[in-house]
Amino acid sequence: MGRLKRQLEFIIEIDKLKHILRQSVLIQDRRNENDAEHSWHLTVMAMVLKEHFVDQDVDLLKAMKMTIIHDLVEIYAGDTFCYDDEGNGDKLEREIESAGKLFSILPEDQEAEFWSLWEEFEERNTKEAKFAACLDRMQPLLLNSRTEGHTWKRPEVNRDKVLERNMILKDNAPALWQEVVEIVDRAVDRGQLRVTN
Amino acid sequence: MGRLKRQLEFIIEIDKLKHILRQSVLIQDRRNENDAEHSWHLTVMAMVLKEHFVDQDVDLLKAMKMTIIHDLVEIYAGDTFCYDDEGNGDKLEREIESAGKLFSILPEDQEAEFWSLWEEFEERNTKEAKFAACLDRMQPLLLNSRTEGHTWKRPEVNRDKVLERNMILKDNAPALWQEVVEIVDRAVDRGQLRVTN
Repeated sequence: MGRLKRQLEFIIEIDKLKHILRQSVLIQDRRNENDAEHSWHLTVMAMVLKEHFVDQDVDLLKAMKMTIIHDLVEIYAGDTFCYDDEGNGDKLEREIESAGKLFSILPEDQEAEFWSLWEEFEERNTKEAKFAACLDRMQPLLLNSRTEGHTWKRPEVNRDKVLERNMILKDNAPALWQEVVEIVDRAVDRGQLRVTN
Repeated sequence: MGRLKRQLEFIIEIDKLKHILRQSVLIQDRRNENDAEHSWHLTVMAMVLKEHFVDQDVDLLKAMKMTIIHDLVEIYAGDTFCYDDEGNGDKLEREIESAGKLFSILPEDQEAEFWSLWEEFEERNTKEAKFAACLDRMQPLLLNSRTEGHTWKRPEVNRDKVLERNMILKDNAPALWQEVVEIVDRAVDRGQLRVTN
């Protein structure tokens, strides 16, 4: 298959991301959010919140590439709830298989770029990956704060787990971390998030 | 309201884009696509298809900023079907009002950036705006090509109108334009798009 045909096949295949449902619900009608919507939201957040990231040298283009593609691997692997310990056991394995299947539709140089961006995001060692991870943590927290703690009400979730999950914000985006703590404490006060299970 | 609070309010407000339905339907389950999903799709397309744009100097970061925010103004203005002549009469006026309401939630410098990006996209004079417009035309065409010409079957649509709508691709992305013509001709052959109304 020619280069352009492969690119178009890839673009058509990733339409499936719009069907991968997350645990978060939308603020207005409380239907489950999907991965395409979530990735779109993170990418706008990258534009708006960059100034709060400690390292001002963060490459915004690279960060936006990461946020826009970071969940593509869920097309065949599905979404795993972050507080689902069992599901997270084989998550990486399933996602690597999914990435291999999906990214290989692309021409080789682009396949390599998508692998590289996704692995960098997963490894969370570079400033762009840390910035993307901060946004990826904060976005569902904002949705929870406006939907009466929708996913926080589940039996396995509590205040400590939510704070631990958002811990990457503490050193990498202190102003955002302060918001996170305020939002979490307000949710506890309102009975939308328990302190202990 | 402080700077960060305004930014977070904006991020929460734009969750509404996920409710703005388009005319296109998704390939898998044929539900209507929404603007957030569409914007996400265009932004990945920008990464994958950049090489086919005539001007290789196109600033990918700027183009991705445009594709990710270009439909935000529909949050209050709604989506207007591209072949709806009546709806398109006051489209710009409604969208300017919507942009004013939405972008003013942001701190002033970011409000100015969002206005500037959206106006540049609408005016279609710069290479980034032309590139974004090419993607914005091609994405629904790809969905139509895999959903038996879903929106093309409407009474007001025909082959000439679809080609005219995609004309920006002819000079700006000739390889993509060739695909467009092939897809359109195949749809006509299959009875999914009429030649005359």
